[in-house]
Amino acid sequence: MIIIVKNNHDEKQLLTLTKWLKSQGLGIDVSKGSHATILGLVGDTSKVDIDLIRSLDIVENVKRIQEPFKSANRKFHPEDTIVDVNGVKFGGDNFQVIAGPCSVESEKQVVEIANQVKQAGATILRGGAFKPRTSPYSFQGLRESGIELLLKAKQETGLSIVTEIMSVRHIDLFKDVDIVQIGARDMQNFELLKEVGKMKKPVLLKRGMCNTIEEWLMSAEYIMSEGCKDVILCERGIRTFEPYTRNTLDLSAIPVLKELTHLPIIVDPSHASGLSRLVRPLSLASAGVGADGLMIEVHNDPQRALCDGAQSLRPEEFASIMKSINEMLPHVGKKNIL
Amino acid sequence: MIIIVKNNHDEKQLLTLTKWLKSQGLGIDVSKGSHATILGLVGDTSKVDIDLIRSLDIVENVKRIQEPFKSANRKFHPEDTIVDVNGVKFGGDNFQVIAGPCSVESEKQVVEIANQVKQAGATILRGGAFKPRTSPYSFQGLRESGIELLLKAKQETGLSIVTEIMSVRHIDLFKDVDIVQIGARDMQNFELLKEVGKMKKPVLLKRGMCNTIEEWLMSAEYIMSEGCKDVILCERGIRTFEPYTRNTLDLSAIPVLKELTHLPIIVDPSHASGLSRLVRPLSLASAGVGADGLMIEVHNDPQRALCDGAQSLRPEEFASIMKSINEMLPHVGKKNIL
Amino acid sequence: MIIIVKNNHDEKQLLTLTKWLKSQGLGIDVSKGSHATILGLVGDTSKVDIDLIRSLDIVENVKRIQEPFKSANRKFHPEDTIVDVNGVKFGGDNFQVIAGPCSVESEKQVVEIANQVKQAGATILRGGAFKPRTSPYSFQGLRESGIELLLKAKQETGLSIVTEIMSVRHIDLFKDVDIVQIGARDMQNFELLKEVGKMKKPVLLKRGMCNTIEEWLMSAEYIMSEGCKDVILCERGIRTFEPYTRNTLDLSAIPVLKELTHLPIIVDPSHASGLSRLVRPLSLASAGVGADGLMIEVHNDPQRALCDGAQSLRPEEFASIMKSINEMLPHVGKKNIL
Amino acid sequence: MIIIVKNNHDEKQLLTLTKWLKSQGLGIDVSKGSHATILGLVGDTSKVDIDLIRSLDIVENVKRIQEPFKSANRKFHPEDTIVDVNGVKFGGDNFQVIAGPCSVESEKQVVEIANQVKQAGATILRGGAFKPRTSPYSFQGLRESGIELLLKAKQETGLSIVTEIMSVRHIDLFKDVDIVQIGARDMQNFELLKEVGKMKKPVLLKRGMCNTIEEWLMSAEYIMSEGCKDVILCERGIRTFEPYTRNTLDLSAIPVLKELTHLPIIVDPSHASGLSRLVRPLSLASAGVGADGLMIEVHNDPQRALCDGAQSLRPEEFASIMKSINEMLPHVGKKNIL
Repeated sequence: MIIIVKNNHDEKQLLTLTKWLKSQGLGIDVSKGSHATILGLVGDTSKVDIDLIRSLDIVENVKRIQEPFKSANRKFHPEDTIVDVNGVKFGGDNFQVIAGPCSVESEKQVVEIANQVKQAGATILRGGAFKPRTSPYSFQGLRESGIELLLKAKQETGLSIVTEIMSVRHIDLFKDVDIVQIGARDMQNFELLKEVGKMKKPVLLKRGMCNTIEEWLMSAEYIMSEGCKDVILCERGIRTFEPYTRNTLDLSAIPVLKELTHLPIIVDPSHASGLSRLVRPLSLASAGVGADGLMIEVHNDPQRALCDGAQSLRPEEFASIMKSINEMLPHVGKKNIL
Repeated sequence: MIIIVKNNHDEKQLLTLTKWLKSQGLGIDVSKGSHATILGLVGDTSKVDIDLIRSLDIVENVKRIQEPFKSANRKFHPEDTIVDVNGVKFGGDNFQVIAGPCSVESEKQVVEIANQVKQAGATILRGGAFKPRTSPYSFQGLRESGIELLLKAKQETGLSIVTEIMSVRHIDLFKDVDIVQIGARDMQNFELLKEVGKMKKPVLLKRGMCNTIEEWLMSAEYIMSEGCKDVILCERGIRTFEPYTRNTLDLSAIPVLKELTHLPIIVDPSHASGLSRLVRPLSLASAGVGADGLMIEVHNDPQRALCDGAQSLRPEEFASIMKSINEMLPHVGKKNIL
Repeated sequence: MIIIVKNNHDEKQLLTLTKWLKSQGLGIDVSKGSHATILGLVGDTSKVDIDLIRSLDIVENVKRIQEPFKSANRKFHPEDTIVDVNGVKFGGDNFQVIAGPCSVESEKQVVEIANQVKQAGATILRGGAFKPRTSPYSFQGLRESGIELLLKAKQETGLSIVTEIMSVRHIDLFKDVDIVQIGARDMQNFELLKEVGKMKKPVLLKRGMCNTIEEWLMSAEYIMSEGCKDVILCERGIRTFEPYTRNTLDLSAIPVLKELTHLPIIVDPSHASGLSRLVRPLSLASAGVGADGLMIEVHNDPQRALCDGAQSLRPEEFASIMKSINEMLPHVGKKNIL
Repeated sequence: MIIIVKNNHDEKQLLTLTKWLKSQGLGIDVSKGSHATILGLVGDTSKVDIDLIRSLDIVENVKRIQEPFKSANRKFHPEDTIVDVNGVKFGGDNFQVIAGPCSVESEKQVVEIANQVKQAGATILRGGAFKPRTSPYSFQGLRESGIELLLKAKQETGLSIVTEIMSVRHIDLFKDVDIVQIGARDMQNFELLKEVGKMKKPVLLKRGMCNTIEEWLMSAEYIMSEGCKDVILCERGIRTFEPYTRNTLDLSAIPVLKELTHLPIIVDPSHASGLSRLVRPLSLASAGVGADGLMIEVHNDPQRALCDGAQSLRPEEFASIMKSINEMLPHVGKKNIL
């Protein structure tokens, strides 16, 4: 971190500042220029409050030159983290596809889809039990009983399950869930992040639709700082001015994250676009860009889906996409999935 | 709501659709054109799931022509809602200024500031007890004891208090808080909205930094659908590409909201810009644009504030801004505050 | 400018870099830390190519600590620039209102409106002759003859005129125009900026809808670097995700610009929102935030306007807004306009 | 197009509106509902001015149900357009890679790179002669002589060339250029679009960094309406809040455009990210998503590039990327390039 101190600063104030910084265990390189004095902070600056320093009268500007995240930082953990979910491995040269319906609707529905996606090569079953909806008048999910249905599908198929948590009040309901999903709207629900971090389960952390890559890693840091090491990041599109797609999938984020962090990163092409016919090209693009996997919505009756139906894919289309992905994987250093 | 049905649609599917719509209590005007068939839905379409309809094979497009919010909608409630907080009235020709420190730090600090802002004309005391911070390593607020300190300041000054809630686990701690604040990051924390709506207390609902005006009103709808009628909206800036200010204050939202809803709407110029020197001009702009009040951060020692210090104002500057606002209010149809 | 050099850099490459920087007349403060070597550049760094330096192998990062604009920079020109257009002064404690139709349609129309806005207190007449339209099938303006009609209205009313230039091919047509307007879409049409700068006429430079404040000032710099000193900046809204208003008016930009530059800055509330009923509140907000004036569309028959009709105001409404603005000006340090 | 007429409308005004619409050759379906009257416009509505209609007193809202572009619209031209540049074909099952330096610097440089990229499989040479730069103090390109150097490289290698035009004044200089490029900043420089359309040469139209897909196609429409049929679209990233990459590459735009238009569409991964190390993953992603080609910056000495050096790639890295792309193409229905 670099602190640019104003030229006409009070020396006593500068002394107070440097003392305070040293008391936090930091070394300080001072460089007195003709226009400004520059303090270079040496040591772990990830816990330094940059806003506080910027507010000081004698400070012209503060610039970070190191990332503020630590547990998630590849600099301190150069090897890829492999998140192992009952033998299904995320990260490294693995490519995993999570699939299932947007919302869990009935035992028949979820078991049927689970069987279909498993057959097509999916290794984890997804399904919404608690559903975040913009309107209080929209279907909010089957909630508790939705989780029970997912567990039945797990029993039937052997697929591990992932489903979204929306409140700290529901933590006990998730005790048998294999991966706990934090949705985009909750990416900065810090109290939820902390409690989920304490569950010591793999966490799928979606990117908030208006959050930067750095903020996303800071949210991973919240989870990891509670002892959880198994965070899977999931890019699902950011909000831009373009109205044609629901969100703008930010595929550049994948190689950027590969540099910044050791955590696995997957892509959700279904929610990003909101258009099921874009799932195929965006899935192939995700494989091309180096993602560690995909999360795809599949529905056996898209026309009567209770929610988000517009973006669901039929099982046969899903199977066809899986074949295409499989062909591409060897060219990007990933093991085949079929 | 208008549903554009594809030209070459299956008549049986169209019949199924119209039956289903009628079963929801809606009337249907059918207009058969040469290029498309148009269904005009008559009745309360606020509970109709637009995504579901769009997903149907026979549907080309769906367009809302009515707003999806109801309790918050001015069409069904033409009079301004006046939110009364122990005699302090928000809405109508009232203008209220909420002021106080970013974070509660000590009894001395909060009582001192409370006295200063009261003297300058503020009518509600704000102060952060639970603090949403991007980094788990940043100061997270005094939490429970922060609320106790606010209550002491209330006792000393008679000012009602507003402070932010971050988790459903903390609801009991807020039983003596006068206005419960939902922060920008929690604007779509739907489980929290529902539980706060049940508290039957005035709620200050901040706009999410990437949320549209319509989504914001839908979040107000979540709170109101639980029985709470007293929602105060608070514009605090949206995220854009402009890096100079922390967020871009969207003042156009105020007259837009005045048309769409009967709820009072205030502005937080401190968080929007992140620059205390912009608080004066943005406060005067907010008065000019027709806001019902302001929420301003004031600190008696900005240089040592534990968080967000960069955007705090000294009490004497706050008093000077209050005088300037007071002069402008009669020109925008608001009662004086001094 | 600060250059952070990688820890394990080649000393010879560092020497090459510092030599090259010195050859550009810059002084260099070197600070060797344990994690990085920091070069502080002393002197005029506004002409240094930051991207080039960032691309060098030995460079970890480059951070500007000074603004890259010079002629427009208040640091080097602390006094407000007063742009004098035939006696109508922009900047300082002056407040000017430019008004007129979106498009020039006929002599009768433009002369009539010119008389009406003059009577209401406007001091400059605006009117589109060349019209930038998204669609090639939309009305493109009366072009040459539109300018002639504006000049007739000038003759009739004595009002100076401002109108938009869209191509270097049209420069000769603008020889009698008092203020040459650069539209939002042309803010980075650099060849046009250079040629308009050579005209030695006052220039009204609108902000591009996706341009930062810094880029805007760099475009002013293009004009000023050709010898033109009289640039008036005009905020007209930026593109965001919010669909309710056409653009999001960024009023925070006005006080920010007041710090960064000595140039006058006005606001166009008509184009920003695209809704004529928002012109009143946004005009009062603009006065409150410290703008030096307004540009408002006024039409005598909004229902038949050839373009952008939706955002035009009737003359009587304009006169009423002028009265309200006039009441507010003394409270923000501006001279009355009526 | 659907016009929603207010319930309490004046019948005479409605009659005037319908007459005027009919005079433009449109048929009208009227549907009178209990809440609103809906007019369904039948015929070619691409030339109807939606803003004008929206401004009418009796109109509640107007919604397009058809795209406003016509020449570029796949509905009226279902077959892919194949743009043939001296035998190099864009569109269909072809995949073309344009490569070359950011700026042309010297004959040696450009001829050397041209030979290298040709050998690696590139089929068109790119190189900036006129350079759009944010700052007037940055290098603006070799201009006229830059084009001459490109033509020499064409002579040496047989590669056709593409370079950016920035002003209508330079049209004569481009008479031997094979593809005329319109840069992102000029995407809505409508006077330039019209004049370039008259050149009857293939045009490479980059997306503006804040422009929607629809606006982009409307700009293609400007070029095509002047008689040019050979427009190649080029996605190069849009401006968002994410600071890590210079722009956010919008790869979803490619399959969306494949539905909307018959024009070929390529991707520029170099400018989008501003980071040369992202060129490989983004190139593979572009192939995966179905693009018709790529435009990549290659430099033989990235450390001394005069501009944008940070994003240039060395020839050997380019050749390695070409091999990887080549392996993927058969899996996405494209012919091999090596």
